Amino acid sequence: MRQEFESTLLENCVTEIARLPGIGRKSALRLALHILRQDPTAAESLGKAIIDMRRGITYCKVCHNISETELCPICADNRRDRSTICVVETVKDVMIVESTGQFNGLYHVLGGVISPIDGISPDQLEIDSLVSRIADGGISEVILALGATMEGDTTGYYIYRRISQYPDVKVTQLARGVALGNEIEYTDELTLGRSLRNRTLFSDSIKA
Amino acid sequence: MRQEFESTLLENCVTEIARLPGIGRKSALRLALHILRQDPTAAESLGKAIIDMRRGITYCKVCHNISETELCPICADNRRDRSTICVVETVKDVMIVESTGQFNGLYHVLGGVISPIDGISPDQLEIDSLVSRIADGGISEVILALGATMEGDTTGYYIYRRISQYPDVKVTQLARGVALGNEIEYTDELTLGRSLRNRTLFSDSIKA
Repeated sequence: MRQEFESTLLENCVTEIARLPGIGRKSALRLALHILRQDPTAAESLGKAIIDMRRGITYCKVCHNISETELCPICADNRRDRSTICVVETVKDVMIVESTGQFNGLYHVLGGVISPIDGISPDQLEIDSLVSRIADGGISEVILALGATMEGDTTGYYIYRRISQYPDVKVTQLARGVALGNEIEYTDELTLGRSLRNRTLFSDSIKA
Repeated sequence: MRQEFESTLLENCVTEIARLPGIGRKSALRLALHILRQDPTAAESLGKAIIDMRRGITYCKVCHNISETELCPICADNRRDRSTICVVETVKDVMIVESTGQFNGLYHVLGGVISPIDGISPDQLEIDSLVSRIADGGISEVILALGATMEGDTTGYYIYRRISQYPDVKVTQLARGVALGNEIEYTDELTLGRSLRNRTLFSDSIKA
């Protein structure tokens, strides 16, 4: 690679920062020069935080969420409902569902969705381990909290078929409909049609 | 500060990344999760590059450009014209002027421009050290390569006044006019008026 800067140390730093997604070499240089202008302790803290995080964080052996321990804090928490598993695509989705405060069960992070175009097949996802958890018993409901996309639907259907061998386990998915705050005028027809078919009692919304 | 994530290591890393300019907590989380998905060596390289850069890079004692040595490679290069100093605002401006390949003299990095609104006065900039370099003798020209802004003009005028005690030193500034590639239609009147007053011989542009 061509060296652009007089300083090898600056060159290295810019190259490393520019490896991050969404950060080009121009932005990387801007960030590196910013770091140079700051107190030396700021660079030490940033560099150390990155290294320590990568060294210290692993994946929960049960749900595959990120964790500093073999079992993540959610799986280890005995106050949570151990009969319900919420299946999500990514670690970030766990954070998002948690932030709603509406779920008190356990999670299972697939690590993505089935996508033939991107070359992602079911065996590259944590689906076998999900089926194993169900086979171990004690699960009454699996909530599919996957994206409302072609890939999300395909993955959901695949998991549904795999779980159908356990008829006592109820498989549910997130409600789909008009997003809160959205105007009817700007809601797409597919969503609107589905929302009509799956309409709910108004009195239920008053209770909630 | 409120802890948003289950993992303190992730929390620390997101907080540190979010200290960088233009990166909010959402982007910082996206970057941290990206780093977690990569090979552990990637995080080590990134963290180490940041720490090593900050530890190893200092400022040239003569021109105040960044340098890994007491004297930067430009100031130390005997093939450069030591009688001309190009005065710039920032370290980045040195890189930009260098990239033109049109300048073979030395630099002087002010570290900013005079800006009463931002509370930046002349004594916070490397102006005294510039005057000292001129007082030491051997300088025939000082090129002011400052921004074409109110602050750039003020700073240029201040430096011009300070240097006027050395009548043998010619003070020049970058040519101002229609930027290459720009349409006349979209050039502002001030720039256009100035370009008219400072018009140059067409035959000179053919030679260049």
